[in-house]
Amino acid sequence: MSRLRFRISMSLDGYTAGPEQSKKDPLGIGGERLHDWVVALAAWRGPHGLEGGEVNESTRVMEEELANIGATIMGRNMFGGHPGPWSSSQPWNGWWGKEPPFHHPVFVLTHHARPPLALQGGTTFTFVTDGIESALELARRAAGGRDVALAGGAHVAQQYLSAGLVDEMEIHQVPRLLGGGERLFDGVGDLDGLRLVRTVATPDVTHLKFARS
Amino acid sequence: MSRLRFRISMSLDGYTAGPEQSKKDPLGIGGERLHDWVVALAAWRGPHGLEGGEVNESTRVMEEELANIGATIMGRNMFGGHPGPWSSSQPWNGWWGKEPPFHHPVFVLTHHARPPLALQGGTTFTFVTDGIESALELARRAAGGRDVALAGGAHVAQQYLSAGLVDEMEIHQVPRLLGGGERLFDGVGDLDGLRLVRTVATPDVTHLKFARS
Repeated sequence: MSRLRFRISMSLDGYTAGPEQSKKDPLGIGGERLHDWVVALAAWRGPHGLEGGEVNESTRVMEEELANIGATIMGRNMFGGHPGPWSSSQPWNGWWGKEPPFHHPVFVLTHHARPPLALQGGTTFTFVTDGIESALELARRAAGGRDVALAGGAHVAQQYLSAGLVDEMEIHQVPRLLGGGERLFDGVGDLDGLRLVRTVATPDVTHLKFARS
Repeated sequence: MSRLRFRISMSLDGYTAGPEQSKKDPLGIGGERLHDWVVALAAWRGPHGLEGGEVNESTRVMEEELANIGATIMGRNMFGGHPGPWSSSQPWNGWWGKEPPFHHPVFVLTHHARPPLALQGGTTFTFVTDGIESALELARRAAGGRDVALAGGAHVAQQYLSAGLVDEMEIHQVPRLLGGGERLFDGVGDLDGLRLVRTVATPDVTHLKFARS
């Protein structure tokens, strides 16, 4: 069975992005610091074309997270927002550059239809306008038996969590306060059978893995 | 130097009490479950006059928490709220029964003056109406060189955190959602030099200890 595996970095006060998000500052004030722990890892830097980096307790968490993923689902803002309805004269390829680090099909939830966007290295962005269940079905089919990653952001995650469609959840909790911004669990209700099954603690981040029992 | 040590149980979505708090249900809907981990411990049950209980990874956290504490500060709601201005014809001794588990001086922040309340076993509640710094000064003096515990609730903790007066903070994070209620870090700003220094992970709770670097 292909599982839907959600993972996201969250502050101690429950935010996945800081206040005043904008196209210039998509993670809001302080939001980038939620990702300091991963940007420091050799396991992240290599695939993103950067040299060096650390090998630490978070490395195996990241390797575990990437293993057996055949497709990814994300929201429109995580893809890169858009400057208005899509326009063929002004294509906008998101934040991800010419060769995104996914190397598999990515499904973007949006209200604006757009043809698929095939980029270098095997990443194709497909834009899904008919809701979270449709995106999940397309992603499962594209994953060819492997699992589907739910990359965020908070708004899309809330929809999947509320619908009880998430099979596994990894919260990378960063010991900082953002004080405002996008709250991950607003309106989710309860965890609907997801239970804490594994914790990996480091000075920079606590990795909390939840799964259905 | 006598340190101010704050500790509290918090849900994954950042609440220290659930929605619809009342005198009948002081922790709000679901709020009691934040304390399941501690009520299960032999180290908690004994001092509260209960038999049995577990010894697990949380035991040493709790022992650490209780060690070297000479006085406690808490808010009015944690003491037991009040049925209106204090009345000598209707004394209200809070939630804590005839022999509270503190066995040292406790300072209660309130807007309603009231004479001190000496109970069995060495616990005296002193009601402080002139603010958090005054309560801290009184508590430090009473602690006789030992540390002061800040017991909560969230509203009092926010004031001490915002003022930069907390030297150590232990968050007992429970892997549940409450979905509403009293949020611990609302309006606190940043952690003002408090850094994560130790994590103890169990299936029921993650103990995150912060201290000044």
